[in-house]
Amino acid sequence: MPAIALLHPEIPQNAGNIARFSVAIGWNLYFIEPLGFSLEDRALKRAGLDYWPQVRLRIFRSEEEFLTATNARRLVFVDPLGRAPFFSFDWSPNDVLLFGRESTGLSWIGDNSVYIPMAADCRSINLSNAVAIVAYHVAQRFSDFVRWIPPKKGSIYPPAPGLDASPSGIR
Amino acid sequence: MPAIALLHPEIPQNAGNIARFSVAIGWNLYFIEPLGFSLEDRALKRAGLDYWPQVRLRIFRSEEEFLTATNARRLVFVDPLGRAPFFSFDWSPNDVLLFGRESTGLSWIGDNSVYIPMAADCRSINLSNAVAIVAYHVAQRFSDFVRWIPPKKGSIYPPAPGLDASPSGIR
Repeated sequence: MPAIALLHPEIPQNAGNIARFSVAIGWNLYFIEPLGFSLEDRALKRAGLDYWPQVRLRIFRSEEEFLTATNARRLVFVDPLGRAPFFSFDWSPNDVLLFGRESTGLSWIGDNSVYIPMAADCRSINLSNAVAIVAYHVAQRFSDFVRWIPPKKGSIYPPAPGLDASPSGIR
Repeated sequence: MPAIALLHPEIPQNAGNIARFSVAIGWNLYFIEPLGFSLEDRALKRAGLDYWPQVRLRIFRSEEEFLTATNARRLVFVDPLGRAPFFSFDWSPNDVLLFGRESTGLSWIGDNSVYIPMAADCRSINLSNAVAIVAYHVAQRFSDFVRWIPPKKGSIYPPAPGLDASPSGIR
């Protein structure tokens, strides 16, 4: 199974959203210290909602510790400096997707590196959005959850007159 | 060109991230009132960074006004209740992708509806992540920015010893 690695993430809301997303696709998540927030940060916890017990998070104290631990796996650098669009890259099921911190990204990338093509005049998107786009693309190739899942909610045609959910809570 | 529509969004950070993302893919963005935040909200502005002048945002005062204005276009409902995985849907270049609010989603969906498959035990991901995953998928089919863009930064092999950017700022 691939994994998501965040090198020195700075913004707790992003890290929390990514933690929640890692549960959604069933992947391990790695944070490489130093982090820009405490693991007890309220914004981090809130963004992860009630998914924290299911997050398979491992914290590495340094780049060296991370590189040693993942030595047997291929690192794929995701950064605007990347060499190939992420959808043209030849992904493998054991890849570790490495993302740099929000303010500066990665300073060094290897041959195995990808970027997210964007429209002119735009240099970046939010980190958790970038993780979601690339990781979901990879998950589609290697994860078996990508199959029909019956809706858990009630009728898909409730009589509500508007588009929005009623206060009584259809879902 | 497709567009992103948010029905009654509640969380300004999400709306700001989505605004920034709409610039990244060059699409129009629609907010349908009431909103859970002011358009002057600091969290909204901050999440959009300095992309606000480029955001092509239109505000609709009601669902009715929105439905009237987009009457000639196809609405595609993106929701856990959706009928098809988003990557199996037959998208068109003029589709409007409609997302419900964070707490309740949409209460009603039509035939043209999609969902994002997720691993077991996970019922949702962050709204801006959901928008990014589905809209980027659609953009790949219809937007011409999905092409090679040369890196704007310097050498991709700076001599920095670590993975992280140096304080002097390689990017």
